Amino acid sequence: MDIETIPHPIVQSLVRLIRAEDRSGAFDADSDEELLAPFIVTKAEKREMPMFGDPDPDILARVEKFYGAVAIELEQRTGRAVVPMLNIHHEGWGRVLLIAGRLVAVKAHVRELHRFGFETLAQLVEKAEKLVVEGVTSIETYPAVADA
Amino acid sequence: MDIETIPHPIVQSLVRLIRAEDRSGAFDADSDEELLAPFIVTKAEKREMPMFGDPDPDILARVEKFYGAVAIELEQRTGRAVVPMLNIHHEGWGRVLLIAGRLVAVKAHVRELHRFGFETLAQLVEKAEKLVVEGVTSIETYPAVADA
Repeated sequence: MDIETIPHPIVQSLVRLIRAEDRSGAFDADSDEELLAPFIVTKAEKREMPMFGDPDPDILARVEKFYGAVAIELEQRTGRAVVPMLNIHHEGWGRVLLIAGRLVAVKAHVRELHRFGFETLAQLVEKAEKLVVEGVTSIETYPAVADA
Repeated sequence: MDIETIPHPIVQSLVRLIRAEDRSGAFDADSDEELLAPFIVTKAEKREMPMFGDPDPDILARVEKFYGAVAIELEQRTGRAVVPMLNIHHEGWGRVLLIAGRLVAVKAHVRELHRFGFETLAQLVEKAEKLVVEGVTSIETYPAVADA
């Protein structure tokens, strides 16, 4: 395992979301690094992944968890409830919104989900952090809408 | 066929959305009344419909078309692009948002979609009209967010 865990709250939320779904306790013996490993996909690995057919349900579950962790972090920083809405076409592209009240705090387009993953854990955190900042900015710009 | 067509723009949009999906021309010979018939489900019919299992894909397609027609009407009245986002759990409940810019113009919870339908076409129009009014009001309240 070549992933070094980064003590960032987004990584912690992600691990918590993964463990929360593990009702049978199958992951109990797995380290955080092992649970995060499927999120890390190098460029070379992506090239090997076929783009035909529908993306694996496991991939879609990881997409959900990634944006779920972003939503949790946004809640922490703004003190507001944030709900992710994923609209993913079965062919692997779509839209993700993070909603606070009546505000679309974060708006993301996703595509080629067959190859969802980040080069490194640091890149995962960087991407998540960018989305959190977008959300914080929108909520600070339109606080009344986020409260509506 | 006991549905009288109501010359309401929402009904017209709904018919247009149904016909737009009919790529093979299978509905060409069908009247508007026939195409709208599956949207009308009486209380007695609903009681007969089982709530177990997942709702039929045809029902989910009708839910999409109903909210699609509401979105089109909202676009007409506000001059803004409105996108529906449906987040429906396979068991037949979920949320529907109509998004204009960064604004959630309409927010609806749906449930028991196994039994989706309206007692009469007038009730369909009434429900749709209520959602359109909600959308117009939100957009008029937060025009900058709808433009963002």
